[in-house]
Amino acid sequence: MYYVVVYDVNVDRVNEVKKVFREYMDWIQNSVFEGQLTRSEKEKLEGRIKEIIDTSEDMVVFYSTRAEKYLDKEVLGVEKSPTGTVI
Amino acid sequence: MYYVVVYDVNVDRVNEVKKVFREYMDWIQNSVFEGQLTRSEKEKLEGRIKEIIDTSEDMVVFYSTRAEKYLDKEVLGVEKSPTGTVI
Repeated sequence: MYYVVVYDVNVDRVNEVKKVFREYMDWIQNSVFEGQLTRSEKEKLEGRIKEIIDTSEDMVVFYSTRAEKYLDKEVLGVEKSPTGTVI
Repeated sequence: MYYVVVYDVNVDRVNEVKKVFREYMDWIQNSVFEGQLTRSEKEKLEGRIKEIIDTSEDMVVFYSTRAEKYLDKEVLGVEKSPTGTVI
């Protein structure tokens, strides 16, 4: 599956969350990652993130499609990390 | 088309960008909106956002799929705005 992850996490935990995501996915912009994950990679990643976040305060969203080709991407402005097309 | 928008915009412009997105889409969390847009709504929205942002510094990403059903969504932690399922 192809994933786009966005998160809104307390400043005390956000760096640790970012470090874990960097191991599995591509950094796109502040609090946004993209990448292909197998089921087991996703489960491992999810488990590690759950250990860090406070589920009563933080929010992490995994958007996914069966493959990257099913997800169109358009960027306005500067590409903070060159993985997509620019309008 | 169903859209997820994420943005990484300078603090001087971010409130104005947020205000415009609120007119067209649902606020999900910090710098993330979701919603169904027709082609003309998308064009209008894009035009208004381009007038606000500094394209040499800010980044706005429009992810889209043909319909919401093609985009799976999983939320870890608290749902900051109740439009999806929680794991």
